[in-house]
Amino acid sequence: MAPIQPPAPQRGFPESEFEARTLRAQALMAERGLDALLLLTEPEVRYFTGFLTPFWQSPTRPWFVCVPKGGKPVAVIPAIGGACMGRTWIDDIRTWSSPCPEDEGLSLLCETLRELTGGKGVIGLPMGPETALRMSLNDFNRLAAMLAPLTFQDASPIIESLRMVKSEAEIDKIRHICAIMSGVFETLPLQLSMGMSESDIFRTFKTGALNAGADDVAYVVGGLGEGGYGDIISPPSERQSRPGDVLILDTGAVFDGYFCDFDRNYVFGETTDAAKRAHETVWQATEAGLKAARPGNTCADLFNAMQRVMDAGGAMGNDVGRLGHGLGMQLTEWPSNTPTNRTVLQPGMVITLEPGMTFAEGKVMVHEENIVIRDGAPELLSRRAPAEMPVIGR
Amino acid sequence: MAPIQPPAPQRGFPESEFEARTLRAQALMAERGLDALLLLTEPEVRYFTGFLTPFWQSPTRPWFVCVPKGGKPVAVIPAIGGACMGRTWIDDIRTWSSPCPEDEGLSLLCETLRELTGGKGVIGLPMGPETALRMSLNDFNRLAAMLAPLTFQDASPIIESLRMVKSEAEIDKIRHICAIMSGVFETLPLQLSMGMSESDIFRTFKTGALNAGADDVAYVVGGLGEGGYGDIISPPSERQSRPGDVLILDTGAVFDGYFCDFDRNYVFGETTDAAKRAHETVWQATEAGLKAARPGNTCADLFNAMQRVMDAGGAMGNDVGRLGHGLGMQLTEWPSNTPTNRTVLQPGMVITLEPGMTFAEGKVMVHEENIVIRDGAPELLSRRAPAEMPVIGR
Repeated sequence: MAPIQPPAPQRGFPESEFEARTLRAQALMAERGLDALLLLTEPEVRYFTGFLTPFWQSPTRPWFVCVPKGGKPVAVIPAIGGACMGRTWIDDIRTWSSPCPEDEGLSLLCETLRELTGGKGVIGLPMGPETALRMSLNDFNRLAAMLAPLTFQDASPIIESLRMVKSEAEIDKIRHICAIMSGVFETLPLQLSMGMSESDIFRTFKTGALNAGADDVAYVVGGLGEGGYGDIISPPSERQSRPGDVLILDTGAVFDGYFCDFDRNYVFGETTDAAKRAHETVWQATEAGLKAARPGNTCADLFNAMQRVMDAGGAMGNDVGRLGHGLGMQLTEWPSNTPTNRTVLQPGMVITLEPGMTFAEGKVMVHEENIVIRDGAPELLSRRAPAEMPVIGR
Repeated sequence: MAPIQPPAPQRGFPESEFEARTLRAQALMAERGLDALLLLTEPEVRYFTGFLTPFWQSPTRPWFVCVPKGGKPVAVIPAIGGACMGRTWIDDIRTWSSPCPEDEGLSLLCETLRELTGGKGVIGLPMGPETALRMSLNDFNRLAAMLAPLTFQDASPIIESLRMVKSEAEIDKIRHICAIMSGVFETLPLQLSMGMSESDIFRTFKTGALNAGADDVAYVVGGLGEGGYGDIISPPSERQSRPGDVLILDTGAVFDGYFCDFDRNYVFGETTDAAKRAHETVWQATEAGLKAARPGNTCADLFNAMQRVMDAGGAMGNDVGRLGHGLGMQLTEWPSNTPTNRTVLQPGMVITLEPGMTFAEGKVMVHEENIVIRDGAPELLSRRAPAEMPVIGR
């Protein structure tokens, strides 16, 4: 039985979306006295241009987008991306023939940044938590020397505050992939049977997701364990399902470049009371998270609301280090629901509630839902998991 | 009709594989006077440890592996990865609770590197072409200051020379995924029909790949175009196939963490003579590449052999910037087949031959095969494409 496919929202965004993002960035740049932004990573480039391609999986070529103090972003990219970038709202696309390790776009980028800034001032570059430098360190050091007297300054807070609050058009995409995957999770018990291996289960899940309308199922982790599983980031093994197993599947599937990220737990036959109680605990912790997910509360409030329920339920710690996180163009984004994160929840933030706990030696139970912070109660994007784990092969 | 599934090689590697990799790295470190290696990215960490997880898609947490002058690598990783890393050959696994932006593993890493080096000397870090710094630049700068008087030096040449030549166990995995995907490409015309959209075609291809035994179809690009397509890195649109269309699908599918990367071209109904001639040209260019793919020849020789055929066939340039590249743990790896790349081909190198050319205004034709350099003639890993493009919906 295939799940019903919800109608898909329009792909891409109207130009007004990119204009609004750029104007908001430029306002924040002005506050911080930045003369340009330099962006290097897939989500950052896509956020400002709409450039969507899986080609980022090739590490060979760097990609650069410059946001000036006013006007549209400028793309400085390898020629192979020219046609694809040409279909975005960007007008000024400068390309070089890449790979060219002798000058991998550096002189073109340097010239562009000098032109946009007048040759002096400060360039913002994301350098903070959860960022990476997607170019070689040698080339970055060379670039910094070439650009002098222009200097670099951390622009993470700008990117973070822009991307943390989603537009309704972004939320539509996340809602769509959440609806698709909710259906896939709900119909999964009908497609699985006792004895199927982890790898068969993953394959069934992934093909089901693609057939239901997911563009990609980039991220699937989980596995089987008798009376509970031990870790939640492993790829599937050939281990076959047996009576008493608990199965977790945690997925980040994608529609038009936007992720869902939630999990579901299942039982093969009958399992232990401890596992059932642990599931009830994380499910109730999620309820507490839903109640705490109000504008004005912080990520730490969310953490505490969920952790209190798990502590009362006998939690023995958690290796994940947080109880959920932001979600959108990446599988995980800022903010993190940790005891020290004082990020204030705002309407439009899309986050996961992900209470997890060790409930016995080597056994963890993790549950996850995706929500949007709204004025008042949050909107659930994933369809709420059943309070009791569905049974396979009863 | 499902393609026949070849028997899968054993997953993972024997410990001897990791020992050999580590010893070779340590020999190269000694030559360069390096006291340790610091590795940050997915393929580098996996190469030395066997740590395989899609969890790298979350950008939140950095991961560190240190290779000392002697003995096994040491993993310094977020606690969430402890169980998964515990199943590898690594004994010394040090974890911190992450996310923790205040000290994201830095003090633990610093302590570990001091212990392994005695607190002075030079740490090798990949900083060259095709690498990235998978941690925040702020934290890297902080780390460098904390580690003084230890300094960093570029270790790209070590990693590059190690990974460019594959072991037979690595080649087995690439051969397996190439065989799977060759079958998927060969049976695809039976599953497609006139009028299917790009997005339907991609979905059919991906589910076919998963059902045929691919672990993942991380990378699929391509598309349709009347008498030829315009770029080869785009995701699918809703455009429907029409008589006269040329279809290219280029895929990096994965088995046990190893990629294939090759493409196939198809025709819907009947297409132009120009498109057919262009396909014949890139097919013949591949033949020339196969003849030039001999130990002792260089990547530039490969480029020239293929480019000569394309020039004679009326090529009007190429935005890709190279005619193939290394292949293995990543979709693309060193070396690149460019006119200036003097890398000498050695037995065990796995590379793609990827001649591509613009043959009319806005029309390109790209062809790709995967091979292993052997003593004498290369071994084809992908099954050779037919000389003429298969026809769909004749």
